[in-house]
Amino acid sequence: MSRAVAEFGLADVEAAAARIAGRVHRTPVVRSRLLDAEAGCQVHPKAEHLQRAGSFKVRGATSAVRALDPAVLARGVIAVSSGNHAQAVALAAAEAGTSAVIVMPADSNPAKLAATRAYGAEVVSEGVTHERRDEVVLALAAKRGLHLIHPDDDPDVMAGQGTAALELVEQVGELDVVVVPVGGGGLIAGTAAAVKGRSPGTRVVGVEPAGADDACRSLAEGRRVRLPGPPVTLADGVRALTPGERTFAVMRRLVDEIVTVTEEDLLAAVTFLWSRTKQLVEPSGALPVAALLTGAVRARRAGVVLSGGNVDAATLAAHLTPAGA
Amino acid sequence: MSRAVAEFGLADVEAAAARIAGRVHRTPVVRSRLLDAEAGCQVHPKAEHLQRAGSFKVRGATSAVRALDPAVLARGVIAVSSGNHAQAVALAAAEAGTSAVIVMPADSNPAKLAATRAYGAEVVSEGVTHERRDEVVLALAAKRGLHLIHPDDDPDVMAGQGTAALELVEQVGELDVVVVPVGGGGLIAGTAAAVKGRSPGTRVVGVEPAGADDACRSLAEGRRVRLPGPPVTLADGVRALTPGERTFAVMRRLVDEIVTVTEEDLLAAVTFLWSRTKQLVEPSGALPVAALLTGAVRARRAGVVLSGGNVDAATLAAHLTPAGA
Repeated sequence: MSRAVAEFGLADVEAAAARIAGRVHRTPVVRSRLLDAEAGCQVHPKAEHLQRAGSFKVRGATSAVRALDPAVLARGVIAVSSGNHAQAVALAAAEAGTSAVIVMPADSNPAKLAATRAYGAEVVSEGVTHERRDEVVLALAAKRGLHLIHPDDDPDVMAGQGTAALELVEQVGELDVVVVPVGGGGLIAGTAAAVKGRSPGTRVVGVEPAGADDACRSLAEGRRVRLPGPPVTLADGVRALTPGERTFAVMRRLVDEIVTVTEEDLLAAVTFLWSRTKQLVEPSGALPVAALLTGAVRARRAGVVLSGGNVDAATLAAHLTPAGA
Repeated sequence: MSRAVAEFGLADVEAAAARIAGRVHRTPVVRSRLLDAEAGCQVHPKAEHLQRAGSFKVRGATSAVRALDPAVLARGVIAVSSGNHAQAVALAAAEAGTSAVIVMPADSNPAKLAATRAYGAEVVSEGVTHERRDEVVLALAAKRGLHLIHPDDDPDVMAGQGTAALELVEQVGELDVVVVPVGGGGLIAGTAAAVKGRSPGTRVVGVEPAGADDACRSLAEGRRVRLPGPPVTLADGVRALTPGERTFAVMRRLVDEIVTVTEEDLLAAVTFLWSRTKQLVEPSGALPVAALLTGAVRARRAGVVLSGGNVDAATLAAHLTPAGA
């Protein structure tokens, strides 16, 4: 960690924005009259499902990779992920002209393994289980002298994730609330730094599935609570057992509230986005919309981050209801 | 028909644009770096899958309904459709303060029946088969004094459909080609009138599935060819047996070419749009992209109309490959 988390704020996000400028998409805001009507407020959705590699994760990965000293960068980076962080780091490393090793559990989605390889990364899967993956990644990093890019708990990653909200505020102006999904906490930490720095009166609210409410419980208890078992939720991007140490410190200081939604309400939100607004948003990315549709978050003019769009055929097939209108 | 098809042109489309202004969305152009790279040219996709009721059909329906004499309008309208035209007419009638009867075959998608009813239309399905539906609709129209809104072969409908291309040209400037799907021919007739009127040097090209190539054959033979049997294609929006009389007259005069794509190439285009650009486009709507990806249409700067987004779960489940990047 290059600086105190106690001071993490807008300046960090602005520095990240400068590092990633031109390397990631400035994604559009995709408003929908139907969504406004159903939510009962103006909703300004930042379309990170249209981001490079399909999610906001490329912001944090690019921010972290581009912050490295040249000598460190030249030796290469490593990450562990079965999801969007894998492709994000692979892409960020390739574009920075360095190598990436991505440790992915052997039972990862074959399409995600292939996509990560397609960005030029070396994928290590053999014998990698969810339990053993941290052990594998640390051993490999040490052995090969690779720099580990953490998915959340690194200020350069957090700052990169916050650039989405920074753009959103620039694109749409004053908002009374900004709502984002919460997994390990990188997105909400960066978002809070950006939003509170630019507009102190705007509330920053996180959303978790009820079955993965580690951050919600942690904020309530004032300490990092660890869930007893693996979270059960369709939202595979936010299945964290506990918030990060650094992300939690920022959440306590800058986040107003974390709310939860049921799986049923999440599924309804995903289906609404797919069938009514024609946007392929992954379940984790629909959490903020679920919170607005259910009234868990009330607003007049809400910004939301649709965090990603990497969803597989099985999920679509199992859950999408026919598109009517 | 209110005026000669021989004179159908830009002025008709501009008049339709004035009639529908503020009543339909001015849809965005959703560019994709990946799509440009795969197609080998600049592609400017007009996002009619984000249109009200999920397709461009609401343009033609609104244009036709708003062109009616007040006394005719007050008696109500009728249409026959198992697809996007049903919802489009239901919506256009409701907003014009009149009633709509929609004749839909009894085996229509239940979600589409429900969506059409949700717009306030009376749906007549009992005993309606594909063979008997024209008979039913004409009898009902005569009995109740309702005005029939044809899905294609009416200059007010054609002119309304052409407003999408009119907006596209205004939004993105000079194009060397505009590519649209061809079903009954309303979209391409209106598109050709708009594009040739504004930019005579721009080519207008239609795309059909190889299994529903009635317009392609008709242009080649210089007469309206009727396919021997029901077209077999995933693109349910363009399963016409023969071009309309009026639409064909306009096609002969203003359309440069109609090309075909295989089902395999169409499916690849649909999957590309879903998994790589995160846009839920229905198979018919992906025809122009298929033509660009296969090289059936070559261009430097192409405009395409993504004509609709109403696709059901079964189609998604059967065909979508996992979204990688």
